[in-house]
Amino acid sequence: MPSSLSRAIDSYPNRFDPGALGALPEHLQETIRRRNEVLGPGYTLIYREPVEFVSGHGAHLVDREGNDYLDAYNNVPCVGHAHPRVVEAVSRQMAAVNTNTRYVQEALVGYAERLLATFPGGLSKVSLACSGSEANDLAMRVARFHTGGEGIIVTRWAYHGLTREVASFSPSLGPGSPLGPNVRLIDPPDPRLVAPGSTLAEHMRLQVRGAIDDLERHGYRLAALVADCAYSSDGIFTDPVGYMQAVVEEVHAAGGLYIADEVQSGFARLGDSMWGFSRHDVLPDIVTMGKPMGNGLPISGVVFRPEVAEEFGRSVRYFNTFAGSSVPVVAAAAVLDVFDEENVQQRVVENGTALRAGLEELTQASPYVAEVRGSGLYIGVEVVKDPETLAPDRARAEDIINDLRDRRVLISGTAKGAHVLKIRPPLAFSSADVARFLEAFAEVAKVRL
Amino acid sequence: MPSSLSRAIDSYPNRFDPGALGALPEHLQETIRRRNEVLGPGYTLIYREPVEFVSGHGAHLVDREGNDYLDAYNNVPCVGHAHPRVVEAVSRQMAAVNTNTRYVQEALVGYAERLLATFPGGLSKVSLACSGSEANDLAMRVARFHTGGEGIIVTRWAYHGLTREVASFSPSLGPGSPLGPNVRLIDPPDPRLVAPGSTLAEHMRLQVRGAIDDLERHGYRLAALVADCAYSSDGIFTDPVGYMQAVVEEVHAAGGLYIADEVQSGFARLGDSMWGFSRHDVLPDIVTMGKPMGNGLPISGVVFRPEVAEEFGRSVRYFNTFAGSSVPVVAAAAVLDVFDEENVQQRVVENGTALRAGLEELTQASPYVAEVRGSGLYIGVEVVKDPETLAPDRARAEDIINDLRDRRVLISGTAKGAHVLKIRPPLAFSSADVARFLEAFAEVAKVRL
Repeated sequence: MPSSLSRAIDSYPNRFDPGALGALPEHLQETIRRRNEVLGPGYTLIYREPVEFVSGHGAHLVDREGNDYLDAYNNVPCVGHAHPRVVEAVSRQMAAVNTNTRYVQEALVGYAERLLATFPGGLSKVSLACSGSEANDLAMRVARFHTGGEGIIVTRWAYHGLTREVASFSPSLGPGSPLGPNVRLIDPPDPRLVAPGSTLAEHMRLQVRGAIDDLERHGYRLAALVADCAYSSDGIFTDPVGYMQAVVEEVHAAGGLYIADEVQSGFARLGDSMWGFSRHDVLPDIVTMGKPMGNGLPISGVVFRPEVAEEFGRSVRYFNTFAGSSVPVVAAAAVLDVFDEENVQQRVVENGTALRAGLEELTQASPYVAEVRGSGLYIGVEVVKDPETLAPDRARAEDIINDLRDRRVLISGTAKGAHVLKIRPPLAFSSADVARFLEAFAEVAKVRL
Repeated sequence: MPSSLSRAIDSYPNRFDPGALGALPEHLQETIRRRNEVLGPGYTLIYREPVEFVSGHGAHLVDREGNDYLDAYNNVPCVGHAHPRVVEAVSRQMAAVNTNTRYVQEALVGYAERLLATFPGGLSKVSLACSGSEANDLAMRVARFHTGGEGIIVTRWAYHGLTREVASFSPSLGPGSPLGPNVRLIDPPDPRLVAPGSTLAEHMRLQVRGAIDDLERHGYRLAALVADCAYSSDGIFTDPVGYMQAVVEEVHAAGGLYIADEVQSGFARLGDSMWGFSRHDVLPDIVTMGKPMGNGLPISGVVFRPEVAEEFGRSVRYFNTFAGSSVPVVAAAAVLDVFDEENVQQRVVENGTALRAGLEELTQASPYVAEVRGSGLYIGVEVVKDPETLAPDRARAEDIINDLRDRRVLISGTAKGAHVLKIRPPLAFSSADVARFLEAFAEVAKVRL
């Protein structure tokens, strides 16, 4: 196996190993063989036995045989698979018209107003795009333009997207995708990395300061620090909060911007606030969002402090054909409707708390679980070889993930070591779903933990 | 007016001038004021009096007052606004499920097979993305990875997209968006630029050779030549064909790839073939597509010769969340259904030929029309100050565009001089639509040409 092959595969948690194709049920083999024949780069299935779904509702997915799976992994269908409110809005708009932002669209304006109303004052302009990658790409174009700097700081195993620019500051893509010479890495906010006698805020401040110094030593002024407020690919670090003020002070002192990447953490995922940055009581210069925004229709957004985007807007043409067109916008508006009507955020807090408490109880005696982390409905369970060294135990983590999949409960993995269980269900996850999840997890834990 | 402002505005054909807000009808003023309040960079309305549409069908759009407009501009809703086949497919899939490519999806595989069947042998792998920009960004990542080169050649006023990478080789974005130091520009294939005694093929070959030499002199090996097969933003140059073989020979000799950007020219837009490159009897290494692919749902694609993408696929992770998810894929499949059922390509040839012939007849006596160009339903009418100097007449072109708009016929402008009428209707354009268009154009031509 060439080393580049092993490197790319290594970095993908819970991947399906194409070499295991022959062991799958016949009909799956056939579809996957045809798939391999026609699909180009970028297609990885997950689970030792991949799954195909034909319908869904709430946090449930149904396969061809009619089996019901509990979805504890997909963040995109945030208000639930095939939510009737979203289905109805999209179907109605499809039958009317789907035009672009070169024309006046009352619905676009109304949506922008509603979205911005969820932000603190000062963050008052929004541009739409199609994907989180496009949102982060635009955010960085604006940050570079506004600051005149090129330096970028991200966490050690961050993922921010897949355009060439954004991939250059997404270390989790692995060695096949080189980082830019203008990119510096810092630790995620893992309290276990803090030296005795110091604080997380001080630790993070020193790391940022060090990165800025090193950038400047190499001739790069800082453009921006970009941080996923859930540090998803680093292994999910949501708490404690409160260190970001120190970080943002350093960034601003160096003339850089703070870009809050809320593609994962936004839209109430973390429960106690609509946006992850709010938990830290700081004001970003730019906020990006995506995945759950349209409950699956491709739409993403970039929210700005107007000062940082004004000159860019005057100087650079930017027309994103599909972004802000009528259909994705009504989907996104329907998501906000459901947030209101179903009191989604409150449900996330309640069910997230119950889910985390249950997981803590089921894992507290295990020497193989270092931590249960997270907030709201974003939970990481760190699986290690032993509690002293904290060495990642990818094999055990993937056994758990696949044992759960065999019990028709869907999660996956994250972190550089691919050893952190990633539990990130649709926000439609109910208390009954919590109970079913914990029941399945308890069975698996008996064998694996 | 600061110079950067004037530069950005200058480059946008047929823009609405925000300074003219006060002259608009009251309700439009109000919506546009709210729009300006909340939208960030990237929003430009078109026409002196912007329009809002609430429904559409075929090549027709309807405003709030129920007025019917003939759409001779929008290429995205290619099979027609709100085509029932697409509406039905999307509504049904929305109500079932919308999952991603980490799961097995028979429909994705089936679509990929059907799409690839429209390509000549050798172009046999496809990766999906959300937008033409993402498609071109991925194509260039692969080209850089495969060739180890960085040099890029595009035409002088090309547009390929809006990510940082793609913007760096999109000169039509204007001086506010600087080109990369690794980017070289060549003329579009305008036969009028060919020296006496030479041929278009020889002219293009020499330009490419010169660009490669200059890149190499600056230390850049060629990664790719990227060409929009309709040269849309350069001013629409579809004919004569046949020069691309010479161009591709030079590109391959230098170790570079030929990327055919079919975001504008693909899906039978040019009438006599499904893909623009086929008209030249050449085989690209990579083909990108987008806009009309899902009739308005965000979906784009990159088709590869497998050799150029293989190592990239092994070495670089690429997971595009929304790309290839169930709903955009059924929309794209419905578009192919309609192509078959309605014999779309044949209709494009017939109505495109009639439209072009009518335009030629209506403009042949005018000293202000240098050329009527194009193929299929992509037509450019070059408006000049006089037939000798060919100096662009932007003011006259925009008068024509807005006179037509006042007659409820929608077109817009293109080219560096913003002086080429861009006539690019949905492929649903019927022979009755051709007649209505020519009737309105004749009235406008009487005054303006």
